[in-house]
Amino acid sequence: MVLDAKVVAFAGGVGGAKLVYGLSKSLSPEHFTIIGNVADDLDLFGLHISPDLDTVMYTLAGLANPAAGWGITDETWQTVEMLRHYGEEVWFNLGDRDFATHILRTQWLKQGHSLTTVTARLLERLGVHCTLLPVTDDPLRTMVDTQEYGTLPFQEYFVRYQWQPTALNVWFYGMVEAQATTKVVTAIREADVIVFCPSNPVLSIAPLLAVPGVREALVERHGVCVAVSPFVGGKALKGPAEKLMRELKLDISATGLIDYYEGLLDGLVIDKLDQEQAVGSKIPILVTETVMKSEDDKVRLAEEVLRWVGSRKS
Amino acid sequence: MVLDAKVVAFAGGVGGAKLVYGLSKSLSPEHFTIIGNVADDLDLFGLHISPDLDTVMYTLAGLANPAAGWGITDETWQTVEMLRHYGEEVWFNLGDRDFATHILRTQWLKQGHSLTTVTARLLERLGVHCTLLPVTDDPLRTMVDTQEYGTLPFQEYFVRYQWQPTALNVWFYGMVEAQATTKVVTAIREADVIVFCPSNPVLSIAPLLAVPGVREALVERHGVCVAVSPFVGGKALKGPAEKLMRELKLDISATGLIDYYEGLLDGLVIDKLDQEQAVGSKIPILVTETVMKSEDDKVRLAEEVLRWVGSRKS
Repeated sequence: MVLDAKVVAFAGGVGGAKLVYGLSKSLSPEHFTIIGNVADDLDLFGLHISPDLDTVMYTLAGLANPAAGWGITDETWQTVEMLRHYGEEVWFNLGDRDFATHILRTQWLKQGHSLTTVTARLLERLGVHCTLLPVTDDPLRTMVDTQEYGTLPFQEYFVRYQWQPTALNVWFYGMVEAQATTKVVTAIREADVIVFCPSNPVLSIAPLLAVPGVREALVERHGVCVAVSPFVGGKALKGPAEKLMRELKLDISATGLIDYYEGLLDGLVIDKLDQEQAVGSKIPILVTETVMKSEDDKVRLAEEVLRWVGSRKS
Repeated sequence: MVLDAKVVAFAGGVGGAKLVYGLSKSLSPEHFTIIGNVADDLDLFGLHISPDLDTVMYTLAGLANPAAGWGITDETWQTVEMLRHYGEEVWFNLGDRDFATHILRTQWLKQGHSLTTVTARLLERLGVHCTLLPVTDDPLRTMVDTQEYGTLPFQEYFVRYQWQPTALNVWFYGMVEAQATTKVVTAIREADVIVFCPSNPVLSIAPLLAVPGVREALVERHGVCVAVSPFVGGKALKGPAEKLMRELKLDISATGLIDYYEGLLDGLVIDKLDQEQAVGSKIPILVTETVMKSEDDKVRLAEEVLRWVGSRKS
């Protein structure tokens, strides 16, 4: 059994949070660490917003809006309405309850606490017992070079322009100076199992791997590292992953993903609809149902992945 | 007629805003300037909150909650609920729409704009055309020395402890270093009429007079300076004015107010219920109905005060 194993999940936003939810139901919280993406963080109205961390946090706290996948359930929009009444353009979704998170985070950061400390405190206040680690406490921002608008900060590309511009390149502002936190490096080194969640490889997993210290820790790992493909039937379930990867001339097949992760993977989980891609793979592949619609789906996939990794280790 | 006169109103919160509303309906906006209290400003969750400026602003913008006298009409409280869910103690009333004001103000202040500029921008965005000037751009904070809890910042005394502690002294942190803005000094010097609104003399008008530059400008004024008493039948209509002034051994009669304002007044407006206090007054007194319940009351009192001042000037 791997349920007593130390598990580290690399997760971005909505897709990643689904598997994180499943894993959180299968693991004891003290053995479960999520490494979260901060490269799509943004500053709006002087508030520090961490959309991916919040999506994971709200999911673990049972607050997530199940329909949207992001934000808080039963949300209202009065603050944003008033900002618009003041003539402000608000192109990012900010609910009234969500504002409380951004206000507290910003206040605590201004008081000199690190994003790691602030995130731990927010989770503690919400009664979440597993660990969510921002990959770095340093500024890191995804930038998308587009054909139509030049270089766009990630949320402008993603939310304002609804990922419709043609991407020429994706890069991470601050990635040379950034450092993975000691907690992140230690978690990766000590993990028995590392799971790359079915998040967008380029926009959610790549900015984690790009932070100096992460790839090195993965290379030195003693644990097993597997990825769950975000693609089903050769397509992304939602979001820009497929469109973006095609524009960047990246192959979204199993082989393509294994190559994209440059030798880091010990195994890959793909959907039944893509089972022919398992033929002749360089690494072991688990073919299963990867679409997570219900909470049961999330738990089932998490347990299946953990069992598969456990059977391969022993 | 004084309706073309340049009028400056000294105003605090709820009581002051009522007469400000009446004056705004009687004057052309380019001739009407309100000097607002900033000594009960506070910082909560890293946001700069200016309750008195906001009460005046929301009143002029037609957004004020008519029942409470402060805050925005049809307000909701989701952000505060979520802050409480995070375990934060929230003892100050902060509505969801109100948060938009605090968020924008804080953002613009952090960008280096003065409170004067920020306030002007907020009013402009809300379509208010008269001028609201914070008395100073420097930090100024009302402090109340109390018998029970020692020295309390104003909002703790007022909101958290509901002005129940016994006041021993009221003073203004920062008043030595603070400077009235040039706009405030110019407005006072150029005014034809200066009205001290029926705000709390100790908590709303005194912190305006305490700012270096204000009293000097009033002494050098060419205009007529009148006060509207906030007392009716020897009592405050609401709030701590009466209790506080008694604790500070201040006389709340007409004579007491005239003495409290130390020779600055050319006239005083008192309520019919206190008409016997007009007898033998050192300065002219207008006795009228000063209770403002309806919008008509506010306009009527404003026009009556302006007519009275006009008749005395000519």
